[in-house]
Amino acid sequence: MQTVDQTRDWLLSRARVVTTTETVSLLDAVGRVLAADLVSTLDVPPHDNSAMDGYAVRAVAAAETLPVSQRIPAGTVPQPLADGSVARIFTGAVIPPLADAVVMQEQAEVQADGSVRFGAMVKAGQNIRRRGEDIASGQVVLACGQRLRDADLGLAAAIGQPQLSVYRPLKVAVFFTGDELVEPGQPAAAGQIYNSNRYWLVPALRQLGCEVIDLGIIADTLTATRTALRDAANLADVVMTCGGVSVGEEDHVKAAVEAEGELQLWKIAIKPGKPLASGRIGEADFIGLPGNPVSGYVTFAVLVRDFLRARMGEQEQGRAAVRLLPAAFEWLKPDVKREEFLRVRVMERDGQWVLQRFANQGSGVLTSCAWADGLARLQPGQVVQPGDLLPVYPL
Amino acid sequence: MQTVDQTRDWLLSRARVVTTTETVSLLDAVGRVLAADLVSTLDVPPHDNSAMDGYAVRAVAAAETLPVSQRIPAGTVPQPLADGSVARIFTGAVIPPLADAVVMQEQAEVQADGSVRFGAMVKAGQNIRRRGEDIASGQVVLACGQRLRDADLGLAAAIGQPQLSVYRPLKVAVFFTGDELVEPGQPAAAGQIYNSNRYWLVPALRQLGCEVIDLGIIADTLTATRTALRDAANLADVVMTCGGVSVGEEDHVKAAVEAEGELQLWKIAIKPGKPLASGRIGEADFIGLPGNPVSGYVTFAVLVRDFLRARMGEQEQGRAAVRLLPAAFEWLKPDVKREEFLRVRVMERDGQWVLQRFANQGSGVLTSCAWADGLARLQPGQVVQPGDLLPVYPL
Repeated sequence: MQTVDQTRDWLLSRARVVTTTETVSLLDAVGRVLAADLVSTLDVPPHDNSAMDGYAVRAVAAAETLPVSQRIPAGTVPQPLADGSVARIFTGAVIPPLADAVVMQEQAEVQADGSVRFGAMVKAGQNIRRRGEDIASGQVVLACGQRLRDADLGLAAAIGQPQLSVYRPLKVAVFFTGDELVEPGQPAAAGQIYNSNRYWLVPALRQLGCEVIDLGIIADTLTATRTALRDAANLADVVMTCGGVSVGEEDHVKAAVEAEGELQLWKIAIKPGKPLASGRIGEADFIGLPGNPVSGYVTFAVLVRDFLRARMGEQEQGRAAVRLLPAAFEWLKPDVKREEFLRVRVMERDGQWVLQRFANQGSGVLTSCAWADGLARLQPGQVVQPGDLLPVYPL
Repeated sequence: MQTVDQTRDWLLSRARVVTTTETVSLLDAVGRVLAADLVSTLDVPPHDNSAMDGYAVRAVAAAETLPVSQRIPAGTVPQPLADGSVARIFTGAVIPPLADAVVMQEQAEVQADGSVRFGAMVKAGQNIRRRGEDIASGQVVLACGQRLRDADLGLAAAIGQPQLSVYRPLKVAVFFTGDELVEPGQPAAAGQIYNSNRYWLVPALRQLGCEVIDLGIIADTLTATRTALRDAANLADVVMTCGGVSVGEEDHVKAAVEAEGELQLWKIAIKPGKPLASGRIGEADFIGLPGNPVSGYVTFAVLVRDFLRARMGEQEQGRAAVRLLPAAFEWLKPDVKREEFLRVRVMERDGQWVLQRFANQGSGVLTSCAWADGLARLQPGQVVQPGDLLPVYPL
């Protein structure tokens, strides 16, 4: 058996970033992975401007009572400040040449003749937002390998960028084998089970931004499985299956991958989980998840998701999302050999955020995964008492 | 000024859930909000079945050496167990009538004549997964008002459900006013700024599952603004604008909403932020965000997002997502009147998760929001020292 971290590192080391990029307009770019640094070609703000509604002045002259020589709303181009005068100015408006401070209007007394007196000391530079203070021309505002969020697109717009260079979507082909599988909506005969893996895996891949090629259920023969693998490998960057990779299982995925490419079968010290297949078919990667839905779901969340993210060009794969939170449960019979990922939910109790665990941690059905919002990671043999801090992987 | 929580509660109290529902297939249901409890019509597992590869026996007879009377792979229908015999059985296979325990194969000695002896005590019920142990017929497996995640869809599939009843998408119309606004890709004259609000707001709404009607930039006249509001209110459930709702601003949103419907203008004790408009135009809700992008972004994240979620039928609006984390910074000049939402990032330091803040917390440009993965909430006047625990809203 090898550890979760060993497996994760091995998978990440094999993640070849897709090389093709494409240009998308900002409104289509959310969730995509940026393929080049975005460098600003302008200063933001573009000019020194006023942080207040008030008066632009020269600080050295501001002790006098001074006439107002011009009015500068936002969006206009000011004249140089006439000697011995002030300018009426509004928030965001460009500071006139020769002025070096803004006095807020609340600190100005307007005289009967329209000239103004200031009630406070005026310091050079006050209430001026400097050109380039937010973003300097030449600055990298978004980094290659970032997955683009809503605020990133607002930021790109703020520097005038209408489109971005992103990696093309990763193509992932999936299929499911097992004569016992029935699609939901069909009647299930005795001993048959519904194909639940398809219905969490396809949405999970789509939410990562993958283009999914869903080949559905493939007949449980070696020939059909080999054909499906070849077809999938021709269409996709990554081929994924669920099931057929445990010792003693009767279907043909293992033999078919070995015949069509190369297979590495892992026994991982993870619970739920354990078997994970990895390999190559032609130019495509192969990932074989365990067939049990809970095992498959946890293995995907802990190991495969980050491999796919790296494969898509994402630089940071969500380690920072892990949090330490106190358990509100006990766990007295740990697995002694395997790391265990308990399905937990973050709950508020007495104003504190604590972890509750789903009562039934068996790997029978996806109830625990649907209920949970995280996976609490336990080391082999780790007993949990209420209050113990556990690292939690978000789901 | 009113508090953030008062405003949030008021908005939530006015959130009328969309009443129309629609039926979608499972693979189209991720991110949608469930409009009715999903009740299982079957037991999972559907029969008592074996948790192991081994032998099905009657516990009272298991001390004997017993012949194997049948072989039961998964997916087949067993015969009642013949008296004085055992059945070879595999994981997931149905327990034959009259058997009441399974002995794992590692504890069975197969004799030369094919009969078996067990090396350990056999207890009635052992290694049997009971019918309905995971899900009982009649049980609610997904609750009305849940936003559907990948595992939920796997769970629905596991009980044979091919489609789900969900609320129709919320229609949100947006437009932007201000003659100083330029679309990215266009040259910006002196004093003009790029319309960044459109590019974070539209993706943010789409990611919530809203159907966005994007009316773009509307000319800065009262007539055009009133026409846009009327059109938007006819098309959408919610009309949103950015800007034009501060005291002293020169554009026409405020006057136009007052003319076309009713307007409630809030001064909220929130920084960045402060003005928020709320109202009605015909049957549509109106939300006017502050025009400053950072203020608008924070106001949306803290107040408006949950209103929209509730409006979409979602029962739980993400309070549980808030976490307490220790600050790795100091903050010595708090706003004395307003709650402050600092843009922070969760970082690992010495094996601990801590909060770093973006250096420039001004509301000039979206850099801080793009950089951040959370908003740390400070009370008015709250000074922060390193190590202080702060509640963090995820972005």
